[in-house]
Amino acid sequence: MLTFVGLGLYDLDDISVKGMHAIEKADHVFLEAYTSRLMGTDPAAMEERYKKPVQILKREDVEQHPEPILAAAKVGDVVFLTGGDPMVSTTHSDIRIRAAEQGISTRIIHGASIASAVSGLSGLQNYRFGKSCSVPYPAKNWFPRTPFETIQANLAADLHTIVFLDIQENRYMSVREAVEILEKLSSEEGVSISLYVGMARAGSPEPVVIAGDAAKMLNAEFGPPLHILVVPATLHPVEEEYLRIFADLK
Amino acid sequence: MLTFVGLGLYDLDDISVKGMHAIEKADHVFLEAYTSRLMGTDPAAMEERYKKPVQILKREDVEQHPEPILAAAKVGDVVFLTGGDPMVSTTHSDIRIRAAEQGISTRIIHGASIASAVSGLSGLQNYRFGKSCSVPYPAKNWFPRTPFETIQANLAADLHTIVFLDIQENRYMSVREAVEILEKLSSEEGVSISLYVGMARAGSPEPVVIAGDAAKMLNAEFGPPLHILVVPATLHPVEEEYLRIFADLK
Repeated sequence: MLTFVGLGLYDLDDISVKGMHAIEKADHVFLEAYTSRLMGTDPAAMEERYKKPVQILKREDVEQHPEPILAAAKVGDVVFLTGGDPMVSTTHSDIRIRAAEQGISTRIIHGASIASAVSGLSGLQNYRFGKSCSVPYPAKNWFPRTPFETIQANLAADLHTIVFLDIQENRYMSVREAVEILEKLSSEEGVSISLYVGMARAGSPEPVVIAGDAAKMLNAEFGPPLHILVVPATLHPVEEEYLRIFADLK
Repeated sequence: MLTFVGLGLYDLDDISVKGMHAIEKADHVFLEAYTSRLMGTDPAAMEERYKKPVQILKREDVEQHPEPILAAAKVGDVVFLTGGDPMVSTTHSDIRIRAAEQGISTRIIHGASIASAVSGLSGLQNYRFGKSCSVPYPAKNWFPRTPFETIQANLAADLHTIVFLDIQENRYMSVREAVEILEKLSSEEGVSISLYVGMARAGSPEPVVIAGDAAKMLNAEFGPPLHILVVPATLHPVEEEYLRIFADLK
């Protein structure tokens, strides 16, 4: 049996009670640590809490050489841990498909996801979000315009946009870096983004949520990662009041 | 202190460990039971598990007369439980705003939400969803076209649509009822929806996920509530394979 368990957002206590039970029963625990990261804990603390070894998986361990995970799941109970909610990424779909092809039963134990947490932190209503987008770190000769195009299409339809920020090995894009990239693109297009909502450390005891224009975002202190950004459409009165009270909107 | 705690999707064990700690510490526990419902448990079982009383809130208790909740939060620790992830609904934003206006500190402990769980259950990738919509039970002289329009706009942009189904007191819309409504609208418009993905009891040990056309949906057995529906856009190869394996797509 292969059970995918979502760890939730920030630390060891964000997993569900059901997820903890699955870990207690497991013969092997694997941690997928390349699509997301829990900043409020680390693998050593997990092993201490779970009282069993936690094997860290790199992307190639899942996508190229998943045989050890599948072999263990054929004969015993295997838990596959991921930040947030499992299966939001194709890499998880892929290993679940491979398991099923080998006759291994699978199960998903859901966890809190940043995709719904941004609604709570910002007060921006879930049903008013359009397609989300991601801002990657630019590389040599590569400065993708896609996130800006998604934001523009959503604004034209009066929809909010979640902007996921790049997560690389030991490098986490900040709100400031993302806003710099979006402002460069928007000045090239001659259209401006009038309001951003930046968020840091969702799920932690002290998340930071700040709403304002680009100048305010570039000078705001969000603190350590993970960060995420929303570009809101026109605000409903309750959304506006919420941002004034909980996100310092002027 | 007023702490909003998400119960997650289905039963008593879907709450986070952090959420359980908040309940243990709480002087008063309230349960908001009108925007969502956990079908795998009930208030009596909650009281037994939590070893304290759980006060059920109707909509008017939150929106018209929140004074008892706020008064308790002024002098002690109050937990406000909701299905899924808190604040996805304006009714939660509203009471958080009122609390802040009275100088009461507030906090959110996130839970798994159906909005991200549908990605895991269907394999449909999170970043390919557009705006979501809701199908309400039609009333006399009221048969809203909005959900169909949202689906059409998303399909035109090649985006998937989550279709939330109506939840009323002791009445939960089924996939079959929702598909009947959408098919009526689509035949009026002369455009047809070629593929649906219906899901039942997300978060339970045996969720049902079935993909197919309207005829298949109208005859499929999804079992007890809650149900939810997705109208997918064109499928990526991994999405298609996932639906063939886990949702009986032909």
